[in-house]
Amino acid sequence: GSELLEQERAKSNVSVEKLSKFLFTQSVLDRKHRILEVLQSERVFDKSQNYFAGRVDRFETALARAKKLRKLVVKHGWSQEDLRTANDLISEPGPYGLHESMFLITLRDQGTPEQHEKFLKPAENYEIIGCYAQTELGHGSNVRGLETTVTWNEDDKTFILHSPHLTASKWWIGSLGRTANYAVVMAQLWIKGKSYGPHPFVVHIRDMKTHEPLENIHVGDIGPKFGYNTMDNGFLLFNNVKIPHISMLARFSSVDIKTGKYFRPASPSLIYGTLTWVRSTIVLQAGGVLARGVTIATRYCAVRRQFQDRDAKEQGGENQVINYTTVQIRLLTLLATTFALHFTGRGMMQLYEENQKKMSQDAGKVGDASRGAGPEETHSGSDLLADLHATSCGLKSLASSTAVDGLEVCRRACGGHGYSSFSGIGPWYADYLPTATWEGDNYMLTQQVARYLLKSARSVLKGEKPTNDTTQILAHFLSKADIGAAFDVLGKDEDIVAAFAWRSSFLTFEALKHRDEQKMAWNDLLVDFYRLSRAHSQYMVVRNFYAALSAPSTESELDQETRTLMHKLFRLYALHTLEQEASEFYTSAAVTVRQIQLSRTNAVMKLLDEIRPHAVRLVDAWDFPDWQMDSSLGRYDGKVYEDMFYRASELNPLNKITVDPYPNNETLFKKDESRQLKSKL
Amino acid sequence: GSELLEQERAKSNVSVEKLSKFLFTQSVLDRKHRILEVLQSERVFDKSQNYFAGRVDRFETALARAKKLRKLVVKHGWSQEDLRTANDLISEPGPYGLHESMFLITLRDQGTPEQHEKFLKPAENYEIIGCYAQTELGHGSNVRGLETTVTWNEDDKTFILHSPHLTASKWWIGSLGRTANYAVVMAQLWIKGKSYGPHPFVVHIRDMKTHEPLENIHVGDIGPKFGYNTMDNGFLLFNNVKIPHISMLARFSSVDIKTGKYFRPASPSLIYGTLTWVRSTIVLQAGGVLARGVTIATRYCAVRRQFQDRDAKEQGGENQVINYTTVQIRLLTLLATTFALHFTGRGMMQLYEENQKKMSQDAGKVGDASRGAGPEETHSGSDLLADLHATSCGLKSLASSTAVDGLEVCRRACGGHGYSSFSGIGPWYADYLPTATWEGDNYMLTQQVARYLLKSARSVLKGEKPTNDTTQILAHFLSKADIGAAFDVLGKDEDIVAAFAWRSSFLTFEALKHRDEQKMAWNDLLVDFYRLSRAHSQYMVVRNFYAALSAPSTESELDQETRTLMHKLFRLYALHTLEQEASEFYTSAAVTVRQIQLSRTNAVMKLLDEIRPHAVRLVDAWDFPDWQMDSSLGRYDGKVYEDMFYRASELNPLNKITVDPYPNNETLFKKDESRQLKSKL
Ligand SMILES: Cc1cc2nc3c(=O)[nH]c(=O)nc-3n(C[C@H](O)[C@H](O)[C@H](O)COP(=O)(O)OP(=O)(O)OC[C@H]3O[C@@H](n4cnc5c(N)ncnc54)[C@H](O)[C@@H]3O)c2cc1C
Ligand SMILES: Cc1cc2nc3c(=O)[nH]c(=O)nc-3n(C[C@H](O)[C@H](O)[C@H](O)COP(=O)(O)OP(=O)(O)OC[C@H]3O[C@@H](n4cnc5c(N)ncnc54)[C@H](O)[C@@H]3O)c2cc1C
Repeated sequence: GSELLEQERAKSNVSVEKLSKFLFTQSVLDRKHRILEVLQSERVFDKSQNYFAGRVDRFETALARAKKLRKLVVKHGWSQEDLRTANDLISEPGPYGLHESMFLITLRDQGTPEQHEKFLKPAENYEIIGCYAQTELGHGSNVRGLETTVTWNEDDKTFILHSPHLTASKWWIGSLGRTANYAVVMAQLWIKGKSYGPHPFVVHIRDMKTHEPLENIHVGDIGPKFGYNTMDNGFLLFNNVKIPHISMLARFSSVDIKTGKYFRPASPSLIYGTLTWVRSTIVLQAGGVLARGVTIATRYCAVRRQFQDRDAKEQGGENQVINYTTVQIRLLTLLATTFALHFTGRGMMQLYEENQKKMSQDAGKVGDASRGAGPEETHSGSDLLADLHATSCGLKSLASSTAVDGLEVCRRACGGHGYSSFSGIGPWYADYLPTATWEGDNYMLTQQVARYLLKSARSVLKGEKPTNDTTQILAHFLSKADIGAAFDVLGKDEDIVAAFAWRSSFLTFEALKHRDEQKMAWNDLLVDFYRLSRAHSQYMVVRNFYAALSAPSTESELDQETRTLMHKLFRLYALHTLEQEASEFYTSAAVTVRQIQLSRTNAVMKLLDEIRPHAVRLVDAWDFPDWQMDSSLGRYDGKVYEDMFYRASELNPLNKITVDPYPNNETLFKKDESRQLKSKL
Repeated sequence: GSELLEQERAKSNVSVEKLSKFLFTQSVLDRKHRILEVLQSERVFDKSQNYFAGRVDRFETALARAKKLRKLVVKHGWSQEDLRTANDLISEPGPYGLHESMFLITLRDQGTPEQHEKFLKPAENYEIIGCYAQTELGHGSNVRGLETTVTWNEDDKTFILHSPHLTASKWWIGSLGRTANYAVVMAQLWIKGKSYGPHPFVVHIRDMKTHEPLENIHVGDIGPKFGYNTMDNGFLLFNNVKIPHISMLARFSSVDIKTGKYFRPASPSLIYGTLTWVRSTIVLQAGGVLARGVTIATRYCAVRRQFQDRDAKEQGGENQVINYTTVQIRLLTLLATTFALHFTGRGMMQLYEENQKKMSQDAGKVGDASRGAGPEETHSGSDLLADLHATSCGLKSLASSTAVDGLEVCRRACGGHGYSSFSGIGPWYADYLPTATWEGDNYMLTQQVARYLLKSARSVLKGEKPTNDTTQILAHFLSKADIGAAFDVLGKDEDIVAAFAWRSSFLTFEALKHRDEQKMAWNDLLVDFYRLSRAHSQYMVVRNFYAALSAPSTESELDQETRTLMHKLFRLYALHTLEQEASEFYTSAAVTVRQIQLSRTNAVMKLLDEIRPHAVRLVDAWDFPDWQMDSSLGRYDGKVYEDMFYRASELNPLNKITVDPYPNNETLFKKDESRQLKSKL
């Protein structure tokens, strides 16, 4: 395989270094390699048994790694960014995962100074290990429907935490199963017989010494999952557990200890901001998540040879499978998608950061149940916030679905060997998969986008002046609706962007007609809303990709050849998407049947051919260390078969077992030395 | 959950029993329940630790089950059908899997009477346990490219088996890793310096007593996989291993022991038949494979309630999520698909069986490398055979892709709980997944379909008389090509079938133009071929579904109400597919933009609404025993949460472990009693 990859790299002039730097910046790359070196030198991070070990062993190793990582952070004085980079490189969810994210964030954002002293400080020192317990067995998306209650007890100035039904059991809570000794618990607040909705409480759940559950608390791990098995997602039930007044995180709402009066002094727009931030992060990461699969599959398909090409004149041995157009249409379009998502994520993050300051001053009224869906959730809030929120919902849904589905396409493109754990794609896919469900189910989020677009369209119809890109494209569409449009999608890149905007606007006004004129029920429109959100989000991706390539900095940072190639990738992503969604583009009259046909048979095929020679260098630019990917098929040096064989024959515990194969003999294992290969911690 | 499912069942009049009987026949249902009872009474088949155990333990259990099952077969005198039913119910690939399928079949089909005596008999008695070793590390699809050699040694009348390179190592071979003591090995036959292509040899690989590998044989398990981990897929390398003359399976080709002359006396059309049969079986099973996921998701989505419906007047608690149209568009369309695939599979099998007799007499010249793809593989063969072959390729690709992708849609429709192993969908999906890759990669198979359609179109163009359905629809299209067509797809069911035929024919002649007139390279057409195959296969599904509902027996076996419902399911499948593939239907002018729009906004939404009340009874008709599905979410009685909780808290070994959570303490597990829960064999 080595020669083949060398040949591939020789075929293209793309400067891998420049492109990497353009994608990530030099300091980010340096950080990665600095931290990689530290991790690789620690035995506990050795990955060689990862794919073999069962759940209990994997969890044990993950715990050992989490502990070691914490020590490294202290020893080297690593920053948050450093820690995140280390976790990316280790590439498995760990038992401190929720402690280090949602637990600390919630304490920080929603705690008072007194609570910071009492909870946050020890948590930052890992004396308290926490988690974020919102979801219950019976309720996830609908946070307002949570059943755990917390009742203010006037008599002794405490709260009583209780799980009235089995379905009130907390469920799915990361780090709770075995690790955490504290939890932030979301529970329905009751004061004097009146309900105030879900609020966060800091609750002590396991003894600090014995680590056994405290009295009247039933807690444990929820069992094996499709992936994420190095994490102990947990359940938690309370039987009338008394907790002190200080447990209620009181920065935004509180109960007066003397009077039992409920206060909601400050605007919780920051919480709202957190959810938007989390979604933006998902968008930002989606390109890289997918790129890992694309890197593996592209390298392997350049090494894998199968069949002679009979149309070819010279008999140069078997064809690299990456030369088959049915492989290219899968992999190279996804390669283009990785860049599309990357630039979109960057755009989204910039938007988020630019607006972050304004947001913290903003006093828009926003409930904390913004994860929900359905017409009841309409928030007023500022325009800016609403736009950012809708954008983050739509893009989170599109980007994570695209990454998830794309990873499976990559895996299958590798044929039989893609099914081996050593491909590295399957395990990665399995761990990433929940991203399509958490932080807003990808179907449900689309309702938020549709609601925002309908609102925007209404304002445009009323003749209000456009205030942002969304209202601009809607207003533009409206002004042209009776004239029609002709977009030269095969000729001009700007016209591609405009055609995507046109389709999204068309669908918006169509949906508005259904809702406002035909008075259709919300539920009957969900499918249209889903399409609308998808269409609008694809528009945003195309726009962001185009904007990134048109930015002045691009010209200075990339050479002409690479820039031309990036434009081809842009066109490939856009035209392929256009063709996949052809029906909506026709219906909206954004393009003609002839244009789609030409796009399919000419433009896309030609782009595949032009991008093909650069494929390996383009994935090299994503700069995934072999150690991170842990993949036989995706090795930088192309030694695919050697590595598969080594892992199977040398590292595989099953081969330390000799069976008795005959049905009439009771013996199963005649010899079992498989535990010898267990990793040493 | 119980009341909710009871209510669902009360809502609909569909006779579950009648429909089950119609789908499967009474004797098949009886068999299932008879065998289920036997299995459930044997402790070794207890499934309660399946989702928790690691690879080594799972393999051990699977071996114990395989042995016990063999004993049950003997004890009860079970037939092949009985055994297959038992394996379906146990629902995990077992270490005798390849012995009981490809090994025995190959010995039977390709062995001489002498070889039957020597190998088949002991194999049928499980003294010999075998596997089918074709694929190598370097070659899967391209069987002609296999590297293992077998050289006729004139001197002592033996063959020498050898693996010249690492990539020649057999790989992926089911049952080989730890279990088999024999293998059918496909190897390149060399006689006196001349190569005769790949041939099958029966090879002794492990000692009958010690079960250790024989000399100069390197064999082992290839390691963990995305699924299929109860199976020991293996590798196998030969270092100049001498095997006797009788090793070569000699029914169709042989080497004369005296002269060393090569013979190929009989036509290998039967082998060809085997491959077609295997593919047909995959088509037949795909409906049921998918139905299992649809059953689980439908029941769960009827039990799961989330959010109040604000448009609704009465406040009747939270809405069952199956009422949301974005859930319906996913699940009910897949429910329709299960029936579509089921009737198609039945149609395919009938075709196969009807033609089987003719085929065995048929002397069509067909190479044994028919798994391959690419223009070089054009076989002459009889018309009938070619049609059957192409049909089985196209439908295998479409049906298995549809089932695989549909299962993941079902899993995601279940929200967070879909990600738990207890959902039962994930593990099932993971084990089924390779079906998209083996027996012909789903992308590559489409080349075979395209080649057949091109050939058929050429014959039609030449004015030859149509001999089968394919040539008929092509001829019909040609006769109308200058007049155009108007199909009343929303009004008449026959017109739906005709519109699908039209689109397929249109794409066929378009591809023909590219290939024959424009002389485009084969490789440049692969993407079009893929679409063409998909279009044609969808036509076949629609046609088969329609035919099944129009058959006279249907009228007698199903009551009017159920028949009407089945027609609605037919329309839902067809119109939803039409809408998904709208672009090709436009381009071919089979339908208008307006028809698609109406189909999407009216027809499909109305069908969802009409089918909705019957959803639970329709899945009940698939008659999956709870024991088979092993799913908390899919339980017949709807006790979803109780079962999730029971499994997590009572069966989960991780909860027998107490950790030390603090980073500065070296201890990981303070207490570990997890092995207590290991299943007792
Ligand atoms: C690996 C993993 C880790 C997690 N970690 C945590 C954690 O640390 N802490 C925590 O609190 N939670 C956690 N969660 C829970 C997660 O946030 C929820 O699972 C997620 O929010 C989805 O909610 P649900 O499961 O209730 O889905 P449901 O709402 O039950 O969705 C089921 C189906 O109904 C549909 N649906 C529901 N409502 C509507 C509607 N109004 N309109 C249309 N369709 C609808 C959905 O689209 C979906 O198809 C985790 C989950 C997973 C899988
Ligand atoms: C779980 C499992 C069990 C198995 N059990 C057995 C067994 O018991 N015995 C056995 O012999 N084998 C077994 N196999 C092997 C299996 O049959 C092969 O993996 C399968 O045939 C695919 O071949 P491949 O892996 O060589 O794919 P490849 O041919 O390497 O495919 C790689 C990629 O190249 C593309 N490609 C290749 N050639 C072409 C072409 N000409 N035109 C266009 N695209 C092309 C494919 O579409 C795919 O995307 C098993 C495999 C699995 C996963």
